[in-house]
Amino acid sequence: MNTFGKRFALSSFGESHGVAIGGVIDGMPSNVEINLEFLQNEMSKRKPGGKYATNRKEDDELRILSGVFEENGKLFSTGASIGFVIENTSQHSKDYENIKELFRPGHGDFGYFAKWGIRDYRGGGRASARETAVRVAGGAFAQLLLNHFGIEVKSGVLSVGEIGVGSVSSGYAELLGAVDFGNARNSEIFALLPECEASQKELIKSCKDSGESVGASVLSVAKGLFAGLGEPMYDKLDSKIAEAMMNINGVKAVEIGAGVAVSKLRGSENNDELLPASNGGFGAMRAEFGSNNAGGVLAGISSGADLVVLSHFKPTPSIFSEQRTINKRGEAVKFALVGRHDPCIGVRGSVVATAMMRLVLADMLLLGASSRLEMLKRAWSFA
Amino acid sequence: MNTFGKRFALSSFGESHGVAIGGVIDGMPSNVEINLEFLQNEMSKRKPGGKYATNRKEDDELRILSGVFEENGKLFSTGASIGFVIENTSQHSKDYENIKELFRPGHGDFGYFAKWGIRDYRGGGRASARETAVRVAGGAFAQLLLNHFGIEVKSGVLSVGEIGVGSVSSGYAELLGAVDFGNARNSEIFALLPECEASQKELIKSCKDSGESVGASVLSVAKGLFAGLGEPMYDKLDSKIAEAMMNINGVKAVEIGAGVAVSKLRGSENNDELLPASNGGFGAMRAEFGSNNAGGVLAGISSGADLVVLSHFKPTPSIFSEQRTINKRGEAVKFALVGRHDPCIGVRGSVVATAMMRLVLADMLLLGASSRLEMLKRAWSFA
Amino acid sequence: MNTFGKRFALSSFGESHGVAIGGVIDGMPSNVEINLEFLQNEMSKRKPGGKYATNRKEDDELRILSGVFEENGKLFSTGASIGFVIENTSQHSKDYENIKELFRPGHGDFGYFAKWGIRDYRGGGRASARETAVRVAGGAFAQLLLNHFGIEVKSGVLSVGEIGVGSVSSGYAELLGAVDFGNARNSEIFALLPECEASQKELIKSCKDSGESVGASVLSVAKGLFAGLGEPMYDKLDSKIAEAMMNINGVKAVEIGAGVAVSKLRGSENNDELLPASNGGFGAMRAEFGSNNAGGVLAGISSGADLVVLSHFKPTPSIFSEQRTINKRGEAVKFALVGRHDPCIGVRGSVVATAMMRLVLADMLLLGASSRLEMLKRAWSFA
Amino acid sequence: MNTFGKRFALSSFGESHGVAIGGVIDGMPSNVEINLEFLQNEMSKRKPGGKYATNRKEDDELRILSGVFEENGKLFSTGASIGFVIENTSQHSKDYENIKELFRPGHGDFGYFAKWGIRDYRGGGRASARETAVRVAGGAFAQLLLNHFGIEVKSGVLSVGEIGVGSVSSGYAELLGAVDFGNARNSEIFALLPECEASQKELIKSCKDSGESVGASVLSVAKGLFAGLGEPMYDKLDSKIAEAMMNINGVKAVEIGAGVAVSKLRGSENNDELLPASNGGFGAMRAEFGSNNAGGVLAGISSGADLVVLSHFKPTPSIFSEQRTINKRGEAVKFALVGRHDPCIGVRGSVVATAMMRLVLADMLLLGASSRLEMLKRAWSFA
Repeated sequence: MNTFGKRFALSSFGESHGVAIGGVIDGMPSNVEINLEFLQNEMSKRKPGGKYATNRKEDDELRILSGVFEENGKLFSTGASIGFVIENTSQHSKDYENIKELFRPGHGDFGYFAKWGIRDYRGGGRASARETAVRVAGGAFAQLLLNHFGIEVKSGVLSVGEIGVGSVSSGYAELLGAVDFGNARNSEIFALLPECEASQKELIKSCKDSGESVGASVLSVAKGLFAGLGEPMYDKLDSKIAEAMMNINGVKAVEIGAGVAVSKLRGSENNDELLPASNGGFGAMRAEFGSNNAGGVLAGISSGADLVVLSHFKPTPSIFSEQRTINKRGEAVKFALVGRHDPCIGVRGSVVATAMMRLVLADMLLLGASSRLEMLKRAWSFA
Repeated sequence: MNTFGKRFALSSFGESHGVAIGGVIDGMPSNVEINLEFLQNEMSKRKPGGKYATNRKEDDELRILSGVFEENGKLFSTGASIGFVIENTSQHSKDYENIKELFRPGHGDFGYFAKWGIRDYRGGGRASARETAVRVAGGAFAQLLLNHFGIEVKSGVLSVGEIGVGSVSSGYAELLGAVDFGNARNSEIFALLPECEASQKELIKSCKDSGESVGASVLSVAKGLFAGLGEPMYDKLDSKIAEAMMNINGVKAVEIGAGVAVSKLRGSENNDELLPASNGGFGAMRAEFGSNNAGGVLAGISSGADLVVLSHFKPTPSIFSEQRTINKRGEAVKFALVGRHDPCIGVRGSVVATAMMRLVLADMLLLGASSRLEMLKRAWSFA
Repeated sequence: MNTFGKRFALSSFGESHGVAIGGVIDGMPSNVEINLEFLQNEMSKRKPGGKYATNRKEDDELRILSGVFEENGKLFSTGASIGFVIENTSQHSKDYENIKELFRPGHGDFGYFAKWGIRDYRGGGRASARETAVRVAGGAFAQLLLNHFGIEVKSGVLSVGEIGVGSVSSGYAELLGAVDFGNARNSEIFALLPECEASQKELIKSCKDSGESVGASVLSVAKGLFAGLGEPMYDKLDSKIAEAMMNINGVKAVEIGAGVAVSKLRGSENNDELLPASNGGFGAMRAEFGSNNAGGVLAGISSGADLVVLSHFKPTPSIFSEQRTINKRGEAVKFALVGRHDPCIGVRGSVVATAMMRLVLADMLLLGASSRLEMLKRAWSFA
Repeated sequence: MNTFGKRFALSSFGESHGVAIGGVIDGMPSNVEINLEFLQNEMSKRKPGGKYATNRKEDDELRILSGVFEENGKLFSTGASIGFVIENTSQHSKDYENIKELFRPGHGDFGYFAKWGIRDYRGGGRASARETAVRVAGGAFAQLLLNHFGIEVKSGVLSVGEIGVGSVSSGYAELLGAVDFGNARNSEIFALLPECEASQKELIKSCKDSGESVGASVLSVAKGLFAGLGEPMYDKLDSKIAEAMMNINGVKAVEIGAGVAVSKLRGSENNDELLPASNGGFGAMRAEFGSNNAGGVLAGISSGADLVVLSHFKPTPSIFSEQRTINKRGEAVKFALVGRHDPCIGVRGSVVATAMMRLVLADMLLLGASSRLEMLKRAWSFA
């Protein structure tokens, strides 16, 4: 239940205020160069800190324990499982003393206690978004593999609260034209719409200052895909992407391609025409598409068009105003949180969205390698 | 890849124009009474035919081959896997002769051919929504189990094209008050909003008549849940629901609770307060919630509030006007479909949405049975 | 729990006296030619009947329901799941009336009832070796795939009771030289040692006539393997073979290579030396081995030497002399069986052994196709 | 592929000469007391060192990183995944310089290189029995759970080379009477037969002194079982035990109950009669058995009798005499090993056998908790 993926699989462990978090990656093919700098750099993107995030400080240093081997001064995967840990160094567990006996609204506290009868209340324990550092590590390893297939995954923030574009009910094609991933890369809040960035930052800052929080919408795009990724019937690419995204802490809705908006369209508006295309790269069969309402996936299989995914994050449930709830004895109580929290989980959540998409794509790449007899024969003829 | 679920698992097979479709259910506990009338009745809800659906006629008779045993005139599950088949009886395969060599826009044709290099072009083959009959059967078996835990799942159509409520960007609570599942039960299009039903029907009928199609939005609700369903970290209830719903043919977006709208909210608006509640039934720990923006799930675990899910269906890609596409040789071609198709897949899709939710909940029920040492001890003391 | 294999997976259903048995094969690559005659011929090998087996008559006709498609007069796999059924036609359920309330020694009756509280007592229900027909079908499909990789699997009977070679405690190399798979192929009891065949038949016949039964040992060999099959750490080839073989009804011991005998050896005797070999065929890296005590697998990975497996079958628990047991109320009772049973399950079990080995090898072939980055890259470049 | 078990699952990582080995346990129910002293004590049993084992010194200190929580001075499982690491501290990697380019006979070297094209040659890398420390840790956690169900697992050494009892071809019942687990507990070589211990030690010592190695046979018994563990059709208890045992480094044969010997028996000799028994403890349904040729499992389900398993270990392939083999270029070479090795891997392997059996039983305990509707209902009524 703590393992994500079938062939490129990440098993994760760790709590917010435990000794360390970490994971095991199973299925990485051998001979993939392991670029430590890239990995650590990816970790840094999700790292807490800064004006628009929690004040908790963590270096999130990735320590690889196995599965790699040095040859000629470079590190390579060996085909063995890759174990890694990230130590927790900045736990302020006493911030949570006052919530030990009660259940915070919007958090998993109640469900966890109802389910297990015991709860690590410190910083949300296992339910904390701290665990997403493990996913970012896993996703970064996945990307090292995807690199060899020309696949790139990018995410950024479309909207913060009411500022920006929070749905594509209309103007989906225009939206894709307007987003600027270059801007996102250099933005402290990964803003995709340069003209909205300043106001979005202001909104986040004001939430942080006032102990409030705010929701956000995140766009993720995978480029360089070829047709044939995805495993019908129940491991469809879109289905696995929806699972992966909804699995991220705070996500309450996932849209693929034109998403919600398709429910308003006619078939003649929604269908993406196929156009001739030149072959090339991985996978012989190529097409161009007149539009991309499908968001790159049809019947659960990639079409070769960009995979386009929108994830909607709720506001951080940790706010500092007084709230009503119940305690372990079922009695009504009031309380106010203390501690350090992100005012807008969607911001760092966008880094996690990239990671999850990478994990899904790497899994599909491995699962699909035996789709055809010819593929299997080619794979094994390793002369 | 054709198996859904871990402990209550459905393995499916079959193509639109093959001999039969069917499946194997693995994990049904023993001693569950198998009500054949209920099962067949559930099949009938999804059955093709009628004014607002395809003209293809199928009885969808469920034939159970194993896993049940009669005692005292009643049928019970034995704990063995349940095999079942549904014969195909109304294939008009020659309707598809003209698409044999080309890829229909909006369909999986291109991806299937790119992936496998061979394609059963007749009615979409494996990618056809005909396969969802297997899910409805699986979901009906799951419901026989859920009945013993007081869990009920209902779905209906919220909007058809622009008519009705297609998102909950505002007024989520009001929406839940307005829907009428009683109306849906008796409606030929499973309409949840009685005041919209007539115009929705008219729209579907006019699409059918003109060879056009239209999208729809479907609301699903599970009632009677208790806290503790869902398996962190990567088998969260909401994550599995998103996977299940996005897996249905034509679904492009899934929202849980207030869904997309949460991205616009502040934490103080979005958090659902917990209120004291009387204990009772399954699961000792109970709470009431001041609101249900979470849609019944927090941190991936059910809270005991209603599980509320919105799925958005694209318009049927099968339309009868001329379309442009490419053929197997990559050349641009024009074509027009013939055959029999649903003008609005969301309508019968709502029956499949119920089925998928049932499958997920049954799986979580089984997976969760060993969450605590106490549960495991109670389970095994079967004196 | 009714699914065997991870990537080449067989889900099975059916009881001895139910309507039908059958299964779903998931993971067959597309474009594998489906030779119906071969499949039915494999079914015939395990088919009941004849002088040395049960008198139950079943044609075991394999009916394929999905996953195949005809092109140019030949049938090919499409990549979709393959559903199949085998109807039960010769149930004599009333033979089992007298055991309805009691538990037969040596059978699963007691465990099944203790576990599930309900039991299909007719012919052993789900626990019947009738289910192995599903495995033989699955294994035959697997072989259609293995053919393309030059892999062949053969089994035969080494010993019946005390007649023949029932262990390899000494003379393992000699044993391999003495067995005659050609003889086995044409023998009614699949006898590997021609000089023992007549006495083995006599023993089986005399058991059948006297309502007694007898154990047997079965040798299985896979030829044409290349190095690299098997997935450490917990999907090792030998580990999966042991699981598969011990899973066959009546098997109580599994040996690989020199098996039990290795516990008596010194390292210098047991180690198989590696010798230079010419490359060729699938997999570039080849070696010859000075001996094959390892039976073709080291550290869980195939070495390229023959995979050699010995499975030991207990005598059929169904015997006709009076036996003591208890009934459902826990009371001591005496009873005598009636009905039709194999006097030596190892004979037809040898066909099942071949099937299980094929299933494991096909699974490993698929799982291993992404072991190396180079393999994965080659697989996907399907230009 | 590095995960063992479905519901009580151990994911493992680590190489012999890497930084650390470790794992993630997924599925431990909450509220199980975590006794650190017990865990560390179990680790010590497998720990290298001593007169009869390798000279490598490792403390094998278990460091738990997650999944536990302190309440009232005691540590309990929380239901979250349990991450743990065991640091490697005594690597002598330069001992392996001379085998860098060649493949040791009897080891996985050739298969690993053929499969992955890259190999951590230091101490066998991932293929090293050092990984079994992770299994012992996992098994010890499993035992903490099994304790609550009265299940105990014990293993010991029956034979070393030709000394002791290496098979049960005759006298199986006598054998079970003769073994002394009390002696094994206090023996440096876990000897089950006190009268053979001295000669067995002498043989091991002489092998160690002369750079030779020797095989061994290990008996494992689980006591306190109740009927109903095991999941047909393809997760049978015996099948999973065979998989688990054959998975241990060096095991080449697994027998359950009378094992190989059953192939010689008649049905009337082999069947174990059922006798009335008093109910009690877990599981209502009890029986006594007149004999235990079945070794506690029939049709894949535990009967309540002792689970009896024999595993046969080959001699350590690491010997110090000159051997012939090939190198990476396929050329014939001669070499002699240096370094530190166990002369008889079966000795410490017996500790691993216990661990594997514990892992299987814990998994079956969890998997079986939803066998019946009544069990599931009881589990969830956690009032």
